Amino acid sequence: MDLNLPRGMRDFPPEEKIVRQRLTNQLIRVFELYGFVPLETPVVERLDVLSAKYAGGVDSDVMKEVFKVSDQGGRELGLRFDLTVPLARFVAMNPELKMPFKRYQIGKVYRDGPIKFGRYREFWQYDVDIVGVKSMTADAEIVSLALEVFSVLGLDVVLKVNNRKLLTGVLLKAGVPDDLLESAIISLDKLDKIGVEGVSEELTAKGLSSEVVSSLISFLSPGNDLSFFESLIPGNEGLLELKELFSLLPSDDRVVFSPNLARGLAYYTGSVFEVFLRDGSFSSSLAGGGRYDKMIGLYLDNKREVPAVGLSFGFEPILDLLKKLGKVVLDSSVTRVLLVPVGPFFKEAFSLTNDLRRAGVPSEVDLLGRGVSKNIKYASAKNIPFVLFVGEDELSNGLFTLKELSSGVEEKLSFEAVKKKLLNK
Amino acid sequence: MDLNLPRGMRDFPPEEKIVRQRLTNQLIRVFELYGFVPLETPVVERLDVLSAKYAGGVDSDVMKEVFKVSDQGGRELGLRFDLTVPLARFVAMNPELKMPFKRYQIGKVYRDGPIKFGRYREFWQYDVDIVGVKSMTADAEIVSLALEVFSVLGLDVVLKVNNRKLLTGVLLKAGVPDDLLESAIISLDKLDKIGVEGVSEELTAKGLSSEVVSSLISFLSPGNDLSFFESLIPGNEGLLELKELFSLLPSDDRVVFSPNLARGLAYYTGSVFEVFLRDGSFSSSLAGGGRYDKMIGLYLDNKREVPAVGLSFGFEPILDLLKKLGKVVLDSSVTRVLLVPVGPFFKEAFSLTNDLRRAGVPSEVDLLGRGVSKNIKYASAKNIPFVLFVGEDELSNGLFTLKELSSGVEEKLSFEAVKKKLLNK
Repeated sequence: MDLNLPRGMRDFPPEEKIVRQRLTNQLIRVFELYGFVPLETPVVERLDVLSAKYAGGVDSDVMKEVFKVSDQGGRELGLRFDLTVPLARFVAMNPELKMPFKRYQIGKVYRDGPIKFGRYREFWQYDVDIVGVKSMTADAEIVSLALEVFSVLGLDVVLKVNNRKLLTGVLLKAGVPDDLLESAIISLDKLDKIGVEGVSEELTAKGLSSEVVSSLISFLSPGNDLSFFESLIPGNEGLLELKELFSLLPSDDRVVFSPNLARGLAYYTGSVFEVFLRDGSFSSSLAGGGRYDKMIGLYLDNKREVPAVGLSFGFEPILDLLKKLGKVVLDSSVTRVLLVPVGPFFKEAFSLTNDLRRAGVPSEVDLLGRGVSKNIKYASAKNIPFVLFVGEDELSNGLFTLKELSSGVEEKLSFEAVKKKLLNK
Repeated sequence: MDLNLPRGMRDFPPEEKIVRQRLTNQLIRVFELYGFVPLETPVVERLDVLSAKYAGGVDSDVMKEVFKVSDQGGRELGLRFDLTVPLARFVAMNPELKMPFKRYQIGKVYRDGPIKFGRYREFWQYDVDIVGVKSMTADAEIVSLALEVFSVLGLDVVLKVNNRKLLTGVLLKAGVPDDLLESAIISLDKLDKIGVEGVSEELTAKGLSSEVVSSLISFLSPGNDLSFFESLIPGNEGLLELKELFSLLPSDDRVVFSPNLARGLAYYTGSVFEVFLRDGSFSSSLAGGGRYDKMIGLYLDNKREVPAVGLSFGFEPILDLLKKLGKVVLDSSVTRVLLVPVGPFFKEAFSLTNDLRRAGVPSEVDLLGRGVSKNIKYASAKNIPFVLFVGEDELSNGLFTLKELSSGVEEKLSFEAVKKKLLNK
């Protein structure tokens, strides 16, 4: 039998999973300090629910990347590709929800797309969203949460902010026709990646005149600040929202207005955010999101607008970056001490091990009846810092030999003293 | 659009998910105190990997309940139906793993079977397993872990123990022919459910003589202790293992030898375990498992035997029971305090909220600009215990009104005093 995993999917062995759990708990801690509550939805959804937001429905391009699932009842199901669609469905199905609904969701999502370095077909998403608030207070809350997350992680970031309505206003001002707005935004989003020349070429190929293209490029040059746009498109709603958002936030040089930030996805309607490492030494974005006031309504019979703003944290790039910076260290064990029976004393060692566990010390006991040197090798390989020997002498006089593997130092201690020492990390 | 979920699948709204996360963290804490490390594997596996342990392969009966998944490359994939098969695959793919490999895994699994009360098509499994230990030390470790989990949860349980080799020995002694052994075990497993009469009928229908059936029933009556079997089948390997296991465990009236415990699944080879609430007021089993020394080898080219023993905790019945006993209370929020701007002071209230959050107090601020009474209603509905008002007076004299909703008591406190009070849970 061929034991390969499905293409694009991974196992996380313990040393990986331990750091992933720690990082996840750090994020959850901040989410909950901000009053966000957890939601869980199934990994499997109905195909029509997954395709609702795309023109073309089940046969749209995006839906090609959905893993199809079939059950015995012949229902059309698929694996979810993000956590926003399930949120929209959940809000639509639960009209009694108290607003604002501030939820976080951490879960696996699936995309049957091309596999490149760092891209997988099964991966985790970490999303925070606020549903039910039209005002910029919610956008400010999301920005503030993002800054706090990266502070806690010790990462010096820049959070770029723009507004889709401002972008649309600029495009119209430059003379982009209505039917090319979305397509132009997708090209402009690539400014950081393919540069002015690349974007200009794309826009020209899409049918924009060179005059329109050069206006666009000049309007959206990164140096232009809010006052520039006040002269260019006074009264623009996106501009007012941006000013309101900045007025709610304490002055913080991490939050930067970036007129060319677009974010590829079509469903954003207002603010857009993207977070990068400040010094530019890490190219992937660490988080991204924005406001999408029209999406949840797609799941409602009356198509009523339900305002929403959210952010998705890039768990994989954040973890890669933390590893690169030496801020997380892989650990192959959580155990503090390995108890080694010397002689036929498994039962006694086992009972002492359980004592330590009940006292709060993660402990193991040799289950294989190996000799001392093999046990020390095992403990070293697993990064277990201490070994405690349980032999005839120890059991009769109550003094146990505790060996610290890193220093090689051995101490003779009463069992209570061992417990106390191991509890102090 | 029809917004139903896929049949047999559920959303967990925040009030459910909050208690699920808490219970999960309690279990993880015990698993790690016992030196178990986490493993994560994909939800999607190759169909041939999923079917390896079943006669009939992909077309076997069990495999009918596997949700089939297809990708654009036309690969044959499926959703995993347990966490034991992925463990076996992982061990087989990683020959360099240090033994013993003590891993826990918490993950969703999928079975496209009949839906009854309390049975779902997507559900969580919580598994602990020890791979690489042939001796009963590992079985004792698993039993000890199970007892500790239920102690921590405050549940008074009985852990029933038996051994498949003892059961087989008894069946042969009673005259069951080799080819009916497995099928007879499956019937005997139902003794608690359908009683002596029901089981006798089933066994007779399967072709056993009434003499054999009555011997079986008498041999396996619950009152028979280990010494009974020492006379009946002296030297039986399962009997020796049971004696060894009991000798390693401290005397504990929660661990009970149950000669008729079989556990339906065919792959057990030695010890079998099942945990129930002691007083019988809750019929579902709370955990179950056993030794399966031959399964992992199925995934190895050389079919070498790899000993393994494990236990799966029934998260759903445990949670149902804890709810029934009033030991978990649903919570719709984790927030301690809602800050309410009185007047145009959102920015100030927002900044104070962030102060509280940084100090470790889960806090929210009114994002909707609602009046005082609406905010109090919102806080009550969400179970947020305190409301803090931020108005002109408060901001000018530095004394804030903190209202405890349960008692209605209002206090005037400095912001530092508010912080201190809210930090003391």
